[in-house]
Amino acid sequence: MDGGSRKPRTSGFVRWLSSTNDVTRVFLAASARPDMINLAGGLPAPQTYPAEELARIARQAVLDHPTETLGYTAIEGLPALRDAIAARFSTPALSLTRENVLVTTSGMQALDLIGKVLVDPGDRIAVQCPTYLGAIDAWRPRAPRYHAMRLETEAFDPAPAFTGSKFAYTVPNFSNPTGRLVPLDIRQRLVTTARHSGTWLVEDDPYGGLLFDGTPLPGLLDLDADGQGGPYDGPVVRMGTVSKEIAPGLRVGWMIAAPEMIQALTLAKQGSDLCTSGLTQHVALGALQTGLIERIQPTLRALYRPRRDALIAALEESLAPWFTWEIPVGGMFVWAVARDSAINTDTLLHHALDAGVCVSPSSVFDVDGQFRRAVRLNFTLNAPDRLREGVLRLARACAALRAA
Amino acid sequence: MDGGSRKPRTSGFVRWLSSTNDVTRVFLAASARPDMINLAGGLPAPQTYPAEELARIARQAVLDHPTETLGYTAIEGLPALRDAIAARFSTPALSLTRENVLVTTSGMQALDLIGKVLVDPGDRIAVQCPTYLGAIDAWRPRAPRYHAMRLETEAFDPAPAFTGSKFAYTVPNFSNPTGRLVPLDIRQRLVTTARHSGTWLVEDDPYGGLLFDGTPLPGLLDLDADGQGGPYDGPVVRMGTVSKEIAPGLRVGWMIAAPEMIQALTLAKQGSDLCTSGLTQHVALGALQTGLIERIQPTLRALYRPRRDALIAALEESLAPWFTWEIPVGGMFVWAVARDSAINTDTLLHHALDAGVCVSPSSVFDVDGQFRRAVRLNFTLNAPDRLREGVLRLARACAALRAA
Repeated sequence: MDGGSRKPRTSGFVRWLSSTNDVTRVFLAASARPDMINLAGGLPAPQTYPAEELARIARQAVLDHPTETLGYTAIEGLPALRDAIAARFSTPALSLTRENVLVTTSGMQALDLIGKVLVDPGDRIAVQCPTYLGAIDAWRPRAPRYHAMRLETEAFDPAPAFTGSKFAYTVPNFSNPTGRLVPLDIRQRLVTTARHSGTWLVEDDPYGGLLFDGTPLPGLLDLDADGQGGPYDGPVVRMGTVSKEIAPGLRVGWMIAAPEMIQALTLAKQGSDLCTSGLTQHVALGALQTGLIERIQPTLRALYRPRRDALIAALEESLAPWFTWEIPVGGMFVWAVARDSAINTDTLLHHALDAGVCVSPSSVFDVDGQFRRAVRLNFTLNAPDRLREGVLRLARACAALRAA
Repeated sequence: MDGGSRKPRTSGFVRWLSSTNDVTRVFLAASARPDMINLAGGLPAPQTYPAEELARIARQAVLDHPTETLGYTAIEGLPALRDAIAARFSTPALSLTRENVLVTTSGMQALDLIGKVLVDPGDRIAVQCPTYLGAIDAWRPRAPRYHAMRLETEAFDPAPAFTGSKFAYTVPNFSNPTGRLVPLDIRQRLVTTARHSGTWLVEDDPYGGLLFDGTPLPGLLDLDADGQGGPYDGPVVRMGTVSKEIAPGLRVGWMIAAPEMIQALTLAKQGSDLCTSGLTQHVALGALQTGLIERIQPTLRALYRPRRDALIAALEESLAPWFTWEIPVGGMFVWAVARDSAINTDTLLHHALDAGVCVSPSSVFDVDGQFRRAVRLNFTLNAPDRLREGVLRLARACAALRAA
């Protein structure tokens, strides 16, 4: 080529890129540091991955189904996997069929797709607040407006939030980041309002299986079951994933919704990745068919429950002067709110990193990025002694913050 | 729940959904019919999938690297896979590093991501015309304008197309759908203009390894190599995939670009699927490391070249009165243009389906959807006798079209 000088490139990137937060980059840089204790992510404990069984399932799937595992599958997913997911969530009152199911490349893709089919720039989304960081990431390029829903408020009325919103987004079980359960009466109000307003109601449920105490509450999809048979046709869109039940590395999730919504999402998925890997779909199918998910759940709960207790004990020991929290009955997180409203956890994060512990500041879970008084602490990844050490470091960071 | 009547839902889907073509649905419905001959897709022959070797690699990867295969990987991809891709495409003049590489969940995701970082509604894209259907699908939700580039024109000047466009999109090797090679002098012009204008220049190269006759031409990325060492920093963005080299079911692709572009794409991928499956990434890595791709290429060429020849012979025998075509030197497709400009291949498709053969009409490869005079015929999926039978059926469809 000619050796001519290059014109400095005006990179021309789209507007939303400049508005992303840099928290992921901060975390990645931090996680490369030796001895950093990571309480920030939402990571399962790697020892829970059933590697030998999944290795066997993967090998056998490729040998038994070479065309399905190695070729393109239908955009909607393997028919057998869609059937298995429909069967798993069907109840006597709730009749799901293959037409109600789209296989997605992870729960994150499900969030991307729902935005892709419903949100034009400036459209409004009603979101449970605070909300999952990944949902905000997924929708940021669509420049939505948000209506924050505070579902813990006893008198909460969904109508003002739903009216004028393209959809409502909730994480009813062990909400990310707060770890809370949305109470039954609020769940019922959400479903009733969705029915009457015609607003799509997203129920994101990655953690449903991780219940440590008490009995599970009915999901929004279950509350909307009408006992009429046939494919479900209501406003609830349930998202699920095998990431917290088996292994995130498969990147297999699903959406359960009315057939008209599944058809729209399928067109959206066609232009996103055409189809999810047949190999990973078959591994997820094998895990469902062999009962692996059901067999592994008691192991997960037996590992995570004492870790939750260890984190709570460590907080009581070292951080009670600084923070308050509720004990979550499941999930992966404790949400700690600073007693002093002047505390800025974005600033605290930098002291925490200096002290060798990484936490998630509340601003990243706020659609306006303004709430800076809390941190999300994960208890699934680390063993109890590491959790204790992480909290000690966080207490040192608080002291440094006060001294600064 | 209350049994109250449901308000009919105003589904509220976004505008772009109503503008998608239904060709994929037509194809899917058609492919469910027994004895349909599919000349429409871009599918490899399933017997080329190295199932036993991939089954072994998958099993071993999970056993040897449980955390990497079953956990989250970095958004950018496994470092070892990024290194292997950088090494594969580096030359003495072109120095690529890990920072130049993003692993994507298929080539389709690469198309989605480039739109996501560069295209706001109304922005313009310069595209080689006719162009890949999947690219139009990927960008449709962003409502771009297009500037069509006719790269076969000897006097083609890229400057008017590049000026005012966010990027230029090309498939230089065996273009989809035409099967043509972009000539060397046009390649050089594209790169020179990109350098001087600062316009990103996308080189989509899924078929590069499928060359049957002659020697390969240098790629756009190679033509932009400056021999300066260090990570490549120019305007070319090369997209690749293992879909046509090993197996589409892995859904593993890559983008090679300047670090600043890789960083923007990484932010975009974060909100699309967080990371590509560690399992499928490890299988792709194993295929690269064990030389499987290089070993399989002669097999692919030995299978596909006679299939191309069989399709061309069948066309000469039965369709010469109706269509003209060029013999492609590689890739997967023959582009047949009707001699009679009054022929409408959208209409022909319906007669073809009635006759038991599925082909891709040219309208789906046209950014305006208006060019209706050609069909794209695939020769990789079917054995020679099926190709002959498919062309016979297409000839019957042409007769039926005239009679109608």
